[in-house]
Amino acid sequence: MTQKIIYSNQVDTTLMTIIGGGNYNTVIVLVDENTRRLVLPKLHCLSEAHVIEMPSGDKNKTLDTLTAVWQQLERCGATRKSLLVNLGGGVVTDLGGLAAATFKRGIDFVNVPTTLLAAVDASIGGKTGINFMGLKNEIGAFACARSVILSTCFFDTLPIAELKSGYAEMLKHGMLSSHSDFMELVESDIMPIELEPMLELLHKSVKVKEEIVEQDPKEHGQRKALNLGHTVGHAFESKALADGSPVPHGYAVAWGLVVEAVLSHMLKGFPSADLYVLAGFVKSNYGAFHITCDDYDELIGLMRHDKKSRSGEVNCTLLASFGDVRVDNSIGDDDIKAALDIYRDLMGI
Amino acid sequence: MTQKIIYSNQVDTTLMTIIGGGNYNTVIVLVDENTRRLVLPKLHCLSEAHVIEMPSGDKNKTLDTLTAVWQQLERCGATRKSLLVNLGGGVVTDLGGLAAATFKRGIDFVNVPTTLLAAVDASIGGKTGINFMGLKNEIGAFACARSVILSTCFFDTLPIAELKSGYAEMLKHGMLSSHSDFMELVESDIMPIELEPMLELLHKSVKVKEEIVEQDPKEHGQRKALNLGHTVGHAFESKALADGSPVPHGYAVAWGLVVEAVLSHMLKGFPSADLYVLAGFVKSNYGAFHITCDDYDELIGLMRHDKKSRSGEVNCTLLASFGDVRVDNSIGDDDIKAALDIYRDLMGI
Repeated sequence: MTQKIIYSNQVDTTLMTIIGGGNYNTVIVLVDENTRRLVLPKLHCLSEAHVIEMPSGDKNKTLDTLTAVWQQLERCGATRKSLLVNLGGGVVTDLGGLAAATFKRGIDFVNVPTTLLAAVDASIGGKTGINFMGLKNEIGAFACARSVILSTCFFDTLPIAELKSGYAEMLKHGMLSSHSDFMELVESDIMPIELEPMLELLHKSVKVKEEIVEQDPKEHGQRKALNLGHTVGHAFESKALADGSPVPHGYAVAWGLVVEAVLSHMLKGFPSADLYVLAGFVKSNYGAFHITCDDYDELIGLMRHDKKSRSGEVNCTLLASFGDVRVDNSIGDDDIKAALDIYRDLMGI
Repeated sequence: MTQKIIYSNQVDTTLMTIIGGGNYNTVIVLVDENTRRLVLPKLHCLSEAHVIEMPSGDKNKTLDTLTAVWQQLERCGATRKSLLVNLGGGVVTDLGGLAAATFKRGIDFVNVPTTLLAAVDASIGGKTGINFMGLKNEIGAFACARSVILSTCFFDTLPIAELKSGYAEMLKHGMLSSHSDFMELVESDIMPIELEPMLELLHKSVKVKEEIVEQDPKEHGQRKALNLGHTVGHAFESKALADGSPVPHGYAVAWGLVVEAVLSHMLKGFPSADLYVLAGFVKSNYGAFHITCDDYDELIGLMRHDKKSRSGEVNCTLLASFGDVRVDNSIGDDDIKAALDIYRDLMGI
């Protein structure tokens, strides 16, 4: 891992130092239409950079968009000594990271996440990717940004759903860390956002991820801890996408955390009191993902297709308690169905 | 580098051991229509593997083909614990390596090169890629095969042009190594091929590459030694492709070696006697690539676009003598034109 994470609300100065120190012959910035309008004008050090704009949203995290980015890198004369700055949410940092990792077999890139979700999760840890054949992040590479600049100064213009989405990943990190870290998060207000306290919460949260990734950069073992909530969450997200009513990633993770906490309770003795606190917090902040028992088989099929699954079994990360993580659990269909029943009860659907 | 190179003409047994030792849940083999017909039936350990066939030839080393391979990996249910065996020439190992490196962010792959060119060059060293926007290997990744099985037992059905193509890369390795290694190669007969002596020449040649790659896996410095002949060679190859009469990669490299030896003589004192031996060997075995002075500007433009070039300058690896390598030389247009003039003289065109 050569990735350097910098916590700073002085993004322009920080980025200028990185660009100046890298001896790059071209600087290219990847934005979407939102970050082009709202964020790019604030970064004077990028005023002369080539700008590549991609359309926002997970539905555009596709091979077609990636191809268009590669083409524009060609057209603006990018070489191996060029730098790509990914300025945006997780879609921009994931797709831009993959574009940089594969253009001429790899050029340097810097991530400047502009959403809480990207700051706490997508932009750090070296995972890049695009969706493929309806599957999330199915094509990708492990490739570390040269630097990641984490700030909260762009968050005050974020939609509330976007903030909550990122907060769900912080909640996951709290669950992986300790009871007190988890409780600090459920007792904090998401809105109205306060920039400096949020930068501190973000710092604490990212440290949890960093420590896990450092032990296992390529997800052979312990890194799967970070998958907590995601086996079920991805299935919810894929189903919503297939049904034509997509949900924000973090919302799907929040609901997935509840289902996997139920499984943790059933199979690993995770305390029911903690499960109720989690379910209450998720329900009041994220509402519920509505499913019926007719959806179970489809959802289980999607879980089986998850990248972390082996030999067609559903594989989940579970908790014996907050901070006590058990990776690589094969879960039987009956247990999943029982957990989905309990999830529906907890969420009142 | 976790890549293990195995020299063996007992390919079936060797591959069976690799597959058996890897605890893979699916084995997929990538072939083209030639290796499917001529080579796959000889490998009994693959009789139950899923077969993905791609069309042969450099013109098919495209994003479309890569996409089709990804799709078929999905359809045959490949997971992160699957193994992809790339059975073919450099097009199959380059494209298959990239497919494996990016499918679910990376699955294991084994290269079984079936051509001399792939054995001596493409299949080892961790470079994968596809052509893009008319540029060779423009999109790709550094990703090491788990194992590479080098053998000569499939070479006796190769077209002579294919053998000569590989021999040009061996010639390059000889030039990078020493006067005696170079002379051994120009004094050996390419045809008729003798399998065991050729396996020994191959072993010696690959060692040269391995030593260089080990020092510099990601081509930041010394690895550029391996680019000898390729700045000019790639330009010839791209021009031939654009003109609708493609030439084999190794032929282009052989001609490129002559031009870059001329530049080495002009700029680094490379002995003229050695230049004449090289030019004579290349002319009698590969003929000449026909160019006129009207082609120079186009060729220089193509050289500038090479992945190794910085800030629009032409960058070449040169030799002060056999084994005395100087990487990272910026070459002016006038010197290139003078060298192309001398190349035409030497080749009698």
